[in-house]
Amino acid sequence: MTYTLVLLRHGESEWNAKNLFTGWVDVGLTEKGREEARRGGELIREADLQPDVLHTSLLRRAITTANIALDTCDRHWIPVRRDWRLNERHYGALQGKNKKETLEEFGEEQFMTWRRSFDVPPPPIEPGSEFSEAGDPRYADLGDEMPRTECLKDVIERFLPYWESAIVPDLRDGKTVLVAAHGNSLRALVKHLDGISDDDIVGLNIPTGMPLVYRLDEQLQPTVKGGEYLDPEAAKAAAEAVAKQGR
Amino acid sequence: MTYTLVLLRHGESEWNAKNLFTGWVDVGLTEKGREEARRGGELIREADLQPDVLHTSLLRRAITTANIALDTCDRHWIPVRRDWRLNERHYGALQGKNKKETLEEFGEEQFMTWRRSFDVPPPPIEPGSEFSEAGDPRYADLGDEMPRTECLKDVIERFLPYWESAIVPDLRDGKTVLVAAHGNSLRALVKHLDGISDDDIVGLNIPTGMPLVYRLDEQLQPTVKGGEYLDPEAAKAAAEAVAKQGR
Repeated sequence: MTYTLVLLRHGESEWNAKNLFTGWVDVGLTEKGREEARRGGELIREADLQPDVLHTSLLRRAITTANIALDTCDRHWIPVRRDWRLNERHYGALQGKNKKETLEEFGEEQFMTWRRSFDVPPPPIEPGSEFSEAGDPRYADLGDEMPRTECLKDVIERFLPYWESAIVPDLRDGKTVLVAAHGNSLRALVKHLDGISDDDIVGLNIPTGMPLVYRLDEQLQPTVKGGEYLDPEAAKAAAEAVAKQGR
Repeated sequence: MTYTLVLLRHGESEWNAKNLFTGWVDVGLTEKGREEARRGGELIREADLQPDVLHTSLLRRAITTANIALDTCDRHWIPVRRDWRLNERHYGALQGKNKKETLEEFGEEQFMTWRRSFDVPPPPIEPGSEFSEAGDPRYADLGDEMPRTECLKDVIERFLPYWESAIVPDLRDGKTVLVAAHGNSLRALVKHLDGISDDDIVGLNIPTGMPLVYRLDEQLQPTVKGGEYLDPEAAKAAAEAVAKQGR
């Protein structure tokens, strides 16, 4: 008996295409991103891994990716759970800034610290910023938990309670679970599943729109470390492209 | 204190456009249907009636309509509940048949009985029919409740328990509730809300893609009988067009 978990990072967003730091800013998918989502759904259907339940973030790019992928594999009707704990890392004051300009302004070292440091967050976003989520009704219940910036360590700390309380029970029920989320919330999950060190997670990139399948044993340990991409060659090429972002 | 309920019938489907009896056959929206859904979302946004929770059927045309409308009014992130009890009426052996040909073959009286009788269902669908849902995983838990044909009375009987157990509690919580569903499941709800007789419901048509708003008092009685369309003139024209279907 193994449990089946399918991870799907959203397809290209409007701000991926413009090379801007996005974080919690709620941008939509590009047409390329929608096509990635359709392809993801086709791969899921071809592999006969149709999900029984979906977990997504509260952000449009993950929700739309899931809607398109599920429609493509005839699973548009499954139950959905959405939670802010699956959101992308909050990028603080960097939200809305151009990655290339940020690199030029602050230099390679500071840029890579903000992008990839495990425990150093960017400066917090100002509540009055046009890219702040202060007052957004979807986060009205968060109170003091509402982040104004996050490092990957922060993402792990707010994601793991949701993993334990919401996703694991679905897996234990024998359901095939689809998690449609973001680069950093999925890195948080993969780090947990594969027992990756704080140092090593820095170098891990998850490509967009490529279903990544984990089979988990009774102790929720992966039977194959790192999981298995449904289209391994495309995933490898895409991960290399992500690593080069901002250059 | 009033409760707010927004009803939305799905936009034009591929089989509406082809003039086929659809029922539980899971066809998609046409581009016109997607545009109707966007317009519905715009009307909801303009009226400042953004929903807090969505209830839909298990059928793609209602789910896609809701996804598009909610994305348009920035409510793509709200909780979703889906249930077969919101499905369209099961059209039995008529599913997949052309409405005009059925009218010609069986005559006006039989045709109108099947389309509009309160308590006479069409003949049941054969389990081996290509348009049967036997074996469809989304209905695997229904057991003996799985219909093979339905009249409007049957729809009311399977819809009302969901109204009481799932939708009413959301209204009592003070949530603005969106119900994205079908011509006959929404007629069942409107009949219940407005206390319409079995005879009179036969003449009621609900247009596609037009948000219909009910404000309900503490006893869940409509403050305005029949509710209020957000675009009353377009709704009137559309309802008249629905009444002429099959001619």
